[in-house]
Parts: sequence; structure tokens; C-alpha cells
Amino acid sequence: MNLLQNTIQHIIPSDKILYKKTQSNLDNLTKPVGSLGELENLAKKVVSITKVQKPKIRHKVVFVFAADHGVAEENVSAFPQEVTLKMIYNLLNGGAAINVLASNSGAQVIVADLGTKSKPEGIKNNTNFRDKSIAFGTKNFAKEPAMTKEEAVRAIEAGIEVFEEKFKNGIDLAAIGEVGIANTSAASAIIACVTEKPTEEVTGRGTGIDDEVLNHKISVIKKALELHKPDNTDAIDVLSKVGGFEIGGLAGVILAAARHHVPLVIDGLIATSAALIAALIEPNIKDYIFASHSSVESGHQIALDYLEQRPLFDLGMRLGEGTGAAIAMNIIEGSVKLLSEMATFDDLAQMGTPQE
Amino acid sequence: MNLLQNTIQHIIPSDKILYKKTQSNLDNLTKPVGSLGELENLAKKVVSITKVQKPKIRHKVVFVFAADHGVAEENVSAFPQEVTLKMIYNLLNGGAAINVLASNSGAQVIVADLGTKSKPEGIKNNTNFRDKSIAFGTKNFAKEPAMTKEEAVRAIEAGIEVFEEKFKNGIDLAAIGEVGIANTSAASAIIACVTEKPTEEVTGRGTGIDDEVLNHKISVIKKALELHKPDNTDAIDVLSKVGGFEIGGLAGVILAAARHHVPLVIDGLIATSAALIAALIEPNIKDYIFASHSSVESGHQIALDYLEQRPLFDLGMRLGEGTGAAIAMNIIEGSVKLLSEMATFDDLAQMGTPQE
Repeated sequence: MNLLQNTIQHIIPSDKILYKKTQSNLDNLTKPVGSLGELENLAKKVVSITKVQKPKIRHKVVFVFAADHGVAEENVSAFPQEVTLKMIYNLLNGGAAINVLASNSGAQVIVADLGTKSKPEGIKNNTNFRDKSIAFGTKNFAKEPAMTKEEAVRAIEAGIEVFEEKFKNGIDLAAIGEVGIANTSAASAIIACVTEKPTEEVTGRGTGIDDEVLNHKISVIKKALELHKPDNTDAIDVLSKVGGFEIGGLAGVILAAARHHVPLVIDGLIATSAALIAALIEPNIKDYIFASHSSVESGHQIALDYLEQRPLFDLGMRLGEGTGAAIAMNIIEGSVKLLSEMATFDDLAQMGTPQE
Repeated sequence: MNLLQNTIQHIIPSDKILYKKTQSNLDNLTKPVGSLGELENLAKKVVSITKVQKPKIRHKVVFVFAADHGVAEENVSAFPQEVTLKMIYNLLNGGAAINVLASNSGAQVIVADLGTKSKPEGIKNNTNFRDKSIAFGTKNFAKEPAMTKEEAVRAIEAGIEVFEEKFKNGIDLAAIGEVGIANTSAASAIIACVTEKPTEEVTGRGTGIDDEVLNHKISVIKKALELHKPDNTDAIDVLSKVGGFEIGGLAGVILAAARHHVPLVIDGLIATSAALIAALIEPNIKDYIFASHSSVESGHQIALDYLEQRPLFDLGMRLGEGTGAAIAMNIIEGSVKLLSEMATFDDLAQMGTPQE
């Protein structure tokens, strides 16, 4: 049995009985019942995933996957394709936004090349880098399928491998992000296909294109979906026809996290499209993922609704890289700490009351 | 000149030129222009407050003030008055929700008694405690003014003193929170008076009262406002007639933070009512405060609108103590770190491009 099949086979629903039981534990803490709102739901979800009543969050990891996209040659992005490679160097030098925000949440950043157009060089010895290149960028899906079905499976399995290698040293909370010029086109195509919403509703301005380029981008995606007719009950078919290597890789990270009972925070449009691929493969992954922010990208909310996830905040972000997810990690960690660090009403009753 | 007058005299508007200049700095960082949304606005605001182009956030402090309220005898709360004192012990033992969430954001908690009904005992040597008791609880404002005007001024000055003593060792980011049974009644009365909105619109369920008690609470507040007719151009008049000692103290913390160019995060209904008092005294404090969350309490959004503040998130919280503010501290710190830790496009151009 291959790695993907083996991973899927081990993904089970989270523990709903423990979820409910945790509410009783929360109700014993020194606060009015329910007064911490969504924080209480976050804590319950982490418990139901990890099956630990007072989970400890020690190791936090943000997986940032990079790849190039053949569809970039249709001029659907505001940035040239070389930027993907430059951003890998930036990520490994600690200068990208996700480096700063991950560090601010106490998380490590692991960067993987899933298939950039040119191979990154001089970084072999960087312990935060993983070379998992499937090919030098996808094909232009406006003309032909982005990748073969074998490549799609290999991308997903590469993501599983990256997660599992890191998991050996422990991961208590994971997050995903990406870089890849033109990857909002792939993400919007996946979202339109899987959710069956009109392409116009799920396609946005990415890194910042104007009206004319946006209309062109919509038309490119529409024609590609008409050309390839991806089967939206078959994740590999969708991923191979209009997806991207980093999107496949991140779907693999999600599947691996679910398999190993690790809570995982998704990010904006592209990370969420990876969650759609993972959910098509194994719907139970929905129990293991946390939405972080609501992106400016119009397709994001539609994809989150499909995944039955509610974002924690809307800060008007549209950067990707895992930046929204990194902020959410701190909020989720705080919610979990309430379970182990707050006093109970019993504790309070035993504290000295000097006037008695 | 007394401490309050001296403090007010030194509060100046934040630096709007530096605010705009910081956008150019943000636009040089390796990300699409504007793609970090509200995070960019947070960073600009901190720079305009501190007048430092790349501020460092080293010392973070949450000021949690406690006091009792005479209006509790009208049965407007779900909890007995003794809980205020118990919560001081809980806060000093590290078992309250704010202890957990402040620690999760790397912030210290300073607890002050501004006027509980019984004096806390056995905690004199606790370095995180400040005894600033004005009286053993306010009077019942349903029948008489909550405090004298002299007490109102002393409460505000006590807050200034607590801030300034701590400021000697440095405060780079401050937050405020409170405990005090029945203090949502005082806060709602202040908000109704200052914003001139109907009492029904600004009064909520506090720690969790039912419809009957809520209607009674609204009627108590309405009658008090009719009885005392507080002058909503005079902060001391409003605070003395329907306020609370901890609310006055927190208004003092806000004034002191503005005076010393320290960014300050407000919390839910009660902390925001303290900001209304501070803004009545000196409108420029609006430049120095950050809204954190949107509370379940109906009056909160109305008070935030009056203060021209937009909350960063809505997690359905209604606990107080500074819990929402503590979460926001981490987000604000992250935004500020972007300025000093992210690479610029110039840095990126100088990174190796192996294919050339």
C-alpha cells in the first residue's frame, strides 16, 4: 500500500464525547459559564483532536510550500515568476512576513520546494529547507493539465513526508502557508470546481491586479474548467488538471496532521483550496483543521463555508505564506492553556477569606 | 498643580506625519503593497504614538483594577459581591483567565484594589499588587451618587500613580482590564450618558443574567440617570454619579499612557467605559488606544464607535479582566515586529539568483 492510501486509512473522526466533556471542565473554571466564547470552542476542538484533556502546546510548526505555475504565462499575476524563487531565499533568511509572525507566535518555519521553475541553490545545508521538487513548475492549465495524476499523488505524498519527518520530534500545533506566483488562479479554479460556485464569485485580485487583468484571469480559469472538466468527486483529477504542486503538498500535510491527531491551522485562499483537496480525499480532515482569518479574496469565505469552518478574525489580509494562520496559532494556544492553567471554583473556595 | 491636571497638560496628539511616512516603509517590505491590511495600520499607529520608526516591544503590562459597587444591592448581577475580593486572590495566585492569556502574550499582570468592600489581606508582599483603595465600595447610585467628586479625582490619580510607578522600569505596550461585581451597570450608565443612546441599547447581561433581571437592571440605570442627571461634558460629574472606582482608575491609566506615549489596548464594556471617561477629560487619548475585541455586551460597539475605534476580532467573549486586550497585544506586537524584522525589496534584490 502506498503512503497516501496508508495515511487515509488511519484518519478517524475526532472524539465528540471528549469535546462535550471538556465543556464541563471549562464550566468549572473561575469565570462565568460560556464567557470566553469561541476560545472555549477552540480548546474543546483541540482536546477532541488530541484526545488529551489538558493538551500541552510545545512544538509549533508552520509549513510553507513553494512552487511555480505554468498558468503564469497567461499574465494573471502582478508579479513575475522569478519572485517565487526569491521568496524561498527570503523565507530561509528569515525576512518574509511569515518568519516574523511565526516567531511572534513561537513557531518554527519549514520551507519546502515542491516545484519551482529554477532549483534553489546554496541552501542544501539549511535545516529548515526541504527539497521535494516534483517538476520545474506545472504546465499551463489554460492549455493542458497542470500535472499528471502520478505527479499529483507524488505532491501529496511529498507533503505527508515533510510533515512526518518533522513529527518525529513532535508537533503539537501545525499551520500551513505558501508562495507561488499565479497560485491564486489555481486555487480559484479548485474552489470553483469543488464548490460549484461561478468562477466570478471565487476569483480575486491576488497580489494586486487591476480590473482588466482580473477579468482576464476569470476568463482563463473558466475556459480551463470547460476544457478539462475536472471531476469534483475525484481530488486527484481536480489537483492534476487545475492545481499546483504546493497545493498538493499542503493537502498532504493536512492529511498527515489528521492521521497523527495534530490540530492544524489553515490560512487564506490557497491553503484553503488545499484543504478542499484534502477533504475530497478524506472528509474527516474537517475535524482537524482550524480556520484562521477571513481573507480579502472573494473565494475564501465560500471555501471555508464548504469546509464548515468559521474564521477567527478578519484583518483585511491577503498575503498568504501562512501569515493569518500564524496569528491564529497564538489564540489557539491561549485557549488550550486555559484548561491547564486556570483555577477552578473549588480552588477559589479554598482561598483565604480574611473577613470570616 | 495636581497630578491629574499635570498629566492632561502633557497629552499631545500622536504624530500623523510619521503615521503616513511609515506606510512608505511598509511598502518597501517584501510583500504586495497593503497586503497585511489592518496589521499595517496597527504598526503605523504604534509608530505615531511612540515616535520611534522601529519600536521594540519589550515590556508588556496588563493593569487589572478591582472595586465593589453599591448598586450591587439592587440585585443587578448574577454573582454575589464577595466574588470581587475572591477574584483579587485568584488574580494574584495566577489562576484567572487574564493570567493565562497575559502570560500567553508575554505580559505581566498588575492588580490594584481601587475599593473593594472588604480589604484584601495577606498579600501586602505580593509585588504584583497595589493597594489604592478609595473606599469600601461605591455607594448605591440608584439612591445617591456613587462617590464624591474628590473620590472620583482620587481614583483617576490612583490609576496614574500605578501606571507611572510601573513605567519607571519601562512599558512598551499596556492593556487594561477589571473585576468588580455589578460593574457592567456602572459602565452601561456611563455609556448611555456619554453617547446619549437609550439605556436599553447599551445594557447587556453581564456575567449572565436572565430577561427579568436584565429589564430590572435597565430600569435601575434609567432611574439613576434621571435622578442624578450627570453632565456629559464633565467626566468627573459622570464618574462620581454613576461610575466606579476601578473605572476611574483605568481612566487614569489611559491618561498616563497617553502622556508617556505608550500604546494601550482596551478591553470590553467596562474598560471601554473608562476610555469614555478619559476621552471626556482629554480627547487626544483616542490617538493612543487600541480596541481589541468586540464584546457580546450590546453597549460595547456603541462606545467603540464614539471613540472611533475598530475592534480587531469578535470571539464572542464577555469576561472582562482584560482577556480580549491580552489576545490583541500579541497581534499588535506582531505588527510592530514587521517593521524591524522583515526584509525590504532592496534586500531581496541582493540575494543570490543562481540561474544568472
